[in-house]
Amino acid sequence: MLKYPDFLNLELQKVDEIINLSISSDVDKVNLISSYLIGAGGKRVRPIFAILSALMFPVSSDKYLNVAAAVEFIHTATLLHDDVVDESKLRRGRESANSKWGNKLSILVGDFLFAQSFNSMVACGSMDVMDTLSKASTIISEGEVEQLEQIGNINISFDQYLRIIRSKTAELFAAACKCGAIVAKQNLIYQKYLYDFGLNFGIAFQIVDDILDYSSESKIGKDLGNDFLERKITLPVILALPDLTPEEKILFKNWFSSAGDDLSFEKAVEIMKIHNSFEKAKQIATNYINEAKSSLDFFASSEAKNVFQRILEFQVSRIS
Amino acid sequence: MLKYPDFLNLELQKVDEIINLSISSDVDKVNLISSYLIGAGGKRVRPIFAILSALMFPVSSDKYLNVAAAVEFIHTATLLHDDVVDESKLRRGRESANSKWGNKLSILVGDFLFAQSFNSMVACGSMDVMDTLSKASTIISEGEVEQLEQIGNINISFDQYLRIIRSKTAELFAAACKCGAIVAKQNLIYQKYLYDFGLNFGIAFQIVDDILDYSSESKIGKDLGNDFLERKITLPVILALPDLTPEEKILFKNWFSSAGDDLSFEKAVEIMKIHNSFEKAKQIATNYINEAKSSLDFFASSEAKNVFQRILEFQVSRIS
Repeated sequence: MLKYPDFLNLELQKVDEIINLSISSDVDKVNLISSYLIGAGGKRVRPIFAILSALMFPVSSDKYLNVAAAVEFIHTATLLHDDVVDESKLRRGRESANSKWGNKLSILVGDFLFAQSFNSMVACGSMDVMDTLSKASTIISEGEVEQLEQIGNINISFDQYLRIIRSKTAELFAAACKCGAIVAKQNLIYQKYLYDFGLNFGIAFQIVDDILDYSSESKIGKDLGNDFLERKITLPVILALPDLTPEEKILFKNWFSSAGDDLSFEKAVEIMKIHNSFEKAKQIATNYINEAKSSLDFFASSEAKNVFQRILEFQVSRIS
Repeated sequence: MLKYPDFLNLELQKVDEIINLSISSDVDKVNLISSYLIGAGGKRVRPIFAILSALMFPVSSDKYLNVAAAVEFIHTATLLHDDVVDESKLRRGRESANSKWGNKLSILVGDFLFAQSFNSMVACGSMDVMDTLSKASTIISEGEVEQLEQIGNINISFDQYLRIIRSKTAELFAAACKCGAIVAKQNLIYQKYLYDFGLNFGIAFQIVDDILDYSSESKIGKDLGNDFLERKITLPVILALPDLTPEEKILFKNWFSSAGDDLSFEKAVEIMKIHNSFEKAKQIATNYINEAKSSLDFFASSEAKNVFQRILEFQVSRIS
């Protein structure tokens, strides 16, 4: 894991304080489930992006902490609903909320956390932040629907895949970064650079995740092969498909077109390795990380920028 | 059904235009399900409350239309998730979205509509509107969780019931009315009067609904006895319980404590009639409507106020 400098850990503590204050509710189960999920050792990657984006500039207020809390709430609400949709049993190394308390409570507490995200935005006091994050929320839900629609569709194109991960994952990073610039009172040009930075990072982040779902030896808190079991067709598979032999193609079609018992994850990985699908996917992820890197060139040196660069390198190292 | 004056129907058409524009999405299923639900002849009661609240004053902008769209989005998002939670088969006289497209799409499109509600709020351009409606969203989700927790609990108190319906139903009416006053640039005192008006109406509205779930002969789009089947303990039951004979109490305990096959809706209604439970519940609903009526006394005469008065009378007529 990446070790963060003290200044950032201090900011993250403040974000946690805001989050913990927000989730205190008179309704016990709301408290319990919210704390369980928020306190479950999330990596706080999205809050970090909001904080660092603001701290690349001289800031006169700590409104970025509210942005950070807002994006973590959006993310956590999405996770709760995702786990219901995907019927996931595990989340962050523990039993998932839907598994522990059932789908119904997960749906409703997800709504609560989503509402809390908007309360945090209001605390920012910026209509531009509201606008950016509420649009991002819309796009995320559209991405989730499109992903669900494309399950099992072996004919999904690279462009469709890209649109899905851009919506469901990258948009929130992009919005977090842009809002960091907004609360640091930066102009539209800097907002745009940071938006693009977040977008490219977010795309890379999701591709790395999709690669590791097939190949990581220590994917924390998740079983390997979730996407395969859920018949989500991700980049390594999309890249493998054109190169498959007719026999291999039949196997893949069967695996992804029905949730049968004849799934063979090891066989799938073996075939994708033969066709260098993971190497190709890694190359694409690296390209997006390099794009993100080059966005950072526009900004003056700062501690925050240093941390961003280390985060980018860390993502590369995860697939090296 | 209540017939509205032309000026109000015209405003509602404009709200529909805003809503239809907002739900147009590149993702087909998002479009389809959103239109299905929004276009399913909803009564637009909450938008009406937002519009009339603003039009009780001289207004210089039509921002109340965005408030109206926002509250309808919140309401519709809640309905989608409610129907998943309650496993409802029908909604507004048609097959429910979860029944037609499955729980997964209903959850995700609910999130989309919830995000759209915030986009509509942003269009109002008022941080006070944002604050009021995002707090209302939080309270609604807390109310939904509490309702779920209390299912089958025959020991639920009147106060607990009141807190649930206040949260899940009345708070959105109260917020809609308050936001109407905010966009009409009225001071805190008028905002408070309208908030209280909406709150009292909302409580009455839910009690009326809970009564009609046991006794209406033409409950549009819903089967009679939903609450009974879902083991939701509502006001008529709460009022009956202290008066039941020991034998009757055992019956009620069995009916509500498990979703068994020995449910007898007719028998339950018969017992509640003997104990005048419906009459008592009607009296409580009428008290809340009278409270709402008296809030209206603070306002000058207007077309909008007239319609509000007719809506209050209509609610009384539904249980007369």
